[in-house]
Amino acid sequence: MTDWKTTYQEIRQTLDHKKDDHLNTLFTLLRQPSISTLNIGVRECAELLLGIMKDSGINADIMETKGHPVVYGEIIDPKNTKTILFYGHYDVQPPEPLELWESDPFVPTIRDGKIFGRGTGDNKGQLIAHVLAVKTLLEQNGSLPVNVKFLYEGEEEKGSVNLASFVAEHKDLLKADIAYTADGPMEGDGQPTVTLGNRGLLYVELNALGANRDNHSGNKGNIAPDPAMTLLNLIRTMVTDDGEVLIDGFYDGIIQPTPEEKEQLRSIPFFPEKTAKVVGLDSLSMTNEEYYTNLCFKPTFTIAGFLSGYTGEGTKTIIPGKAKVKLDMRLAPNQDPAAIYSAIEKHVSAFDSRCQITVKNLSAVKPSKTPLSHPLVQKVIESVETAYEIAPVVLPALGGTGPMFVFTDILNIPSVTVPYANVDEDNHAPNENMGLKEFYWGIQASSSAILNLGLTD
Amino acid sequence: MTDWKTTYQEIRQTLDHKKDDHLNTLFTLLRQPSISTLNIGVRECAELLLGIMKDSGINADIMETKGHPVVYGEIIDPKNTKTILFYGHYDVQPPEPLELWESDPFVPTIRDGKIFGRGTGDNKGQLIAHVLAVKTLLEQNGSLPVNVKFLYEGEEEKGSVNLASFVAEHKDLLKADIAYTADGPMEGDGQPTVTLGNRGLLYVELNALGANRDNHSGNKGNIAPDPAMTLLNLIRTMVTDDGEVLIDGFYDGIIQPTPEEKEQLRSIPFFPEKTAKVVGLDSLSMTNEEYYTNLCFKPTFTIAGFLSGYTGEGTKTIIPGKAKVKLDMRLAPNQDPAAIYSAIEKHVSAFDSRCQITVKNLSAVKPSKTPLSHPLVQKVIESVETAYEIAPVVLPALGGTGPMFVFTDILNIPSVTVPYANVDEDNHAPNENMGLKEFYWGIQASSSAILNLGLTD
Repeated sequence: MTDWKTTYQEIRQTLDHKKDDHLNTLFTLLRQPSISTLNIGVRECAELLLGIMKDSGINADIMETKGHPVVYGEIIDPKNTKTILFYGHYDVQPPEPLELWESDPFVPTIRDGKIFGRGTGDNKGQLIAHVLAVKTLLEQNGSLPVNVKFLYEGEEEKGSVNLASFVAEHKDLLKADIAYTADGPMEGDGQPTVTLGNRGLLYVELNALGANRDNHSGNKGNIAPDPAMTLLNLIRTMVTDDGEVLIDGFYDGIIQPTPEEKEQLRSIPFFPEKTAKVVGLDSLSMTNEEYYTNLCFKPTFTIAGFLSGYTGEGTKTIIPGKAKVKLDMRLAPNQDPAAIYSAIEKHVSAFDSRCQITVKNLSAVKPSKTPLSHPLVQKVIESVETAYEIAPVVLPALGGTGPMFVFTDILNIPSVTVPYANVDEDNHAPNENMGLKEFYWGIQASSSAILNLGLTD
Repeated sequence: MTDWKTTYQEIRQTLDHKKDDHLNTLFTLLRQPSISTLNIGVRECAELLLGIMKDSGINADIMETKGHPVVYGEIIDPKNTKTILFYGHYDVQPPEPLELWESDPFVPTIRDGKIFGRGTGDNKGQLIAHVLAVKTLLEQNGSLPVNVKFLYEGEEEKGSVNLASFVAEHKDLLKADIAYTADGPMEGDGQPTVTLGNRGLLYVELNALGANRDNHSGNKGNIAPDPAMTLLNLIRTMVTDDGEVLIDGFYDGIIQPTPEEKEQLRSIPFFPEKTAKVVGLDSLSMTNEEYYTNLCFKPTFTIAGFLSGYTGEGTKTIIPGKAKVKLDMRLAPNQDPAAIYSAIEKHVSAFDSRCQITVKNLSAVKPSKTPLSHPLVQKVIESVETAYEIAPVVLPALGGTGPMFVFTDILNIPSVTVPYANVDEDNHAPNENMGLKEFYWGIQASSSAILNLGLTD
């Protein structure tokens, strides 16, 4: 990077002149459906993205997985000391219900300063920003100050089912100093945001079979077992009234927030009234430290679903034959979903009951955590401030779950997420959109990150 | 009854000659739909029944309630010292699903020794037996050895919603020495049965509102309250793992079985393997005393329904906004559903929670108990043995619920139920039926009861 000569302000001017070109590229990508769950247009979209990347000067190729392909790309220059791995996904959610769209989901349309179309924010308008930044930098300067790699998968909307195995099988190819993801919306007030991890997930279904039929609650009351009560009794052995989980080893290995992280949490703007409204509550009495500690550093144990017997209007006097419950556990940094699932199996098999109880593992994703103190994380935070001209909100973790553990736990590199989309992007919903302003900001942010990481030694 | 001269055997012979007449009367009644929940043909059926009763020599009339009318009848003779109150219901269940009927539900049809049609067993074929017995006895003897009253309601299949108020408002009219009901099927092996009560019912719905929407279990996990967990925590304050109910005063007033009743329970034939099969269990390890104690003398606390959140296949990662549970409590002799409901309201309002919890009383029926030792009960038991030529099974109570409390608790008279239908009557189901044999047996049983109660002083 000794020969690097272009400043961010010069790049910024060039980007301003290329806006129409960049928008055209995005529109090309948006016109191509790529619905991974329905297998509609996914490979066509991968081919299209490959072409755009090659035209941008990236050495790219399609790589197969057990499912939809990965589009991989790289620009390696021996002079560079650092490598960024950009992660994104080119698949989209189904557009249904179609009648609620104001314009065709696969005909990108600009209204009120926003681009409408399936996949604008999630994730085509964000993943292409990295490509367009690289293209612009290459055109202006002939080379890049850092090596870049691109891991663009086609199955994120299917739960990234083959990503971990792909990453594990291509550790050398994907070797990098930091993983950088642009996905999701910015924080509530439109502040730029940098997140350094996410909670994991263990989603388990328990089924209790009492009898092979529903029985009359009078004629068979005290005779047939009560499967819903059995699950309730089982769950009461798993969690206290106060929410403390009693499953053996559940809290093992959890990393508590550092004083620095706690300080960080206290600095995040928090608007309880606004948040209460979003959540659908009358009020929310939490400090910002409590709120973000609850989201970033504590696991959850939620009943996401419970069904047994008659649930319509009025009475049906039965002892249901069966009951099921879905348990949704978000896992804090360093909890291990596989170990916890084993503990649950053991817990259930030790539970004495007249019902037959079965356990199903429906989803298990590891948490991911990147330390705030990592020097490259600081570089990314600076680069975001440069691009947006305001310091970003830094979140130690998202409350939700993502595949970032493949970077932190398989590749053993820090992972940052910098969401480029507007807060009302309506991803997964009708009229998905991305603001024009946010789209151009994203390209600036990717450019700024490449430049700033190039300024490390 | 001093002038009574006909023996049961003589009556029995007459009944045998009247079989075709009796069957025709039943068919007339069966052809008239009387679906109380849909208000189809109910008044027409009341008028028809009224005509049959008048033609049989009974002083009868239609009496209005707030819902469908009661058909009331009586034959009072000052010479008689005792009065039987026959209770039954002329309304029927809806016949749906029609496609599962092998013949039109309102065209009575004989196949394989059974009469098929909606209402055959439940309850037209049973209530008409009393009328036909009275008609035959009157024709043969010109008078009856006991006074008879008939309380035939049109809302039993709607939960007898106006019966208690009707009985309370007409205590003098309904004054009697014993209430006699023929309803339900005989015991498993086709033995004649006499039951002396039934459990009560309190059916309550609890709703917990956490937020006005479902929330993302990641982004809002530990922020939005969990309404299913809240109900679970609430229920765990109401009942122990062992099923002991903790609601204040729940067990107040319960009458324990007498040594005589316990002895009685031990004498009831019980076939655990057969019962297990009916209930849908692999096996059932209970003695007959345990089984019948559980059904006749112990209350239940059953989760008849539980619904919250996502209950389909796979995962939906939400914190549901709301949850509901339906609690079905069968009440043992002398428990008071009104007092228990008040205790539940109090219990719930004292429960501390972030959710808003509401309680609904969906059904409350008092239990009913008649002592085995009552002399008229013994007379009924003898009369059943005479009619069926085998000693009946005597149950201290049914596990289910019925309106018999109106007799024991409002009129303060003993109440016996003698089911006339075959065990496979399929009431409430397609192809409802009553065996021809059982239909004729029922008329004998009613005749025998009238004669035997007339032999008391």
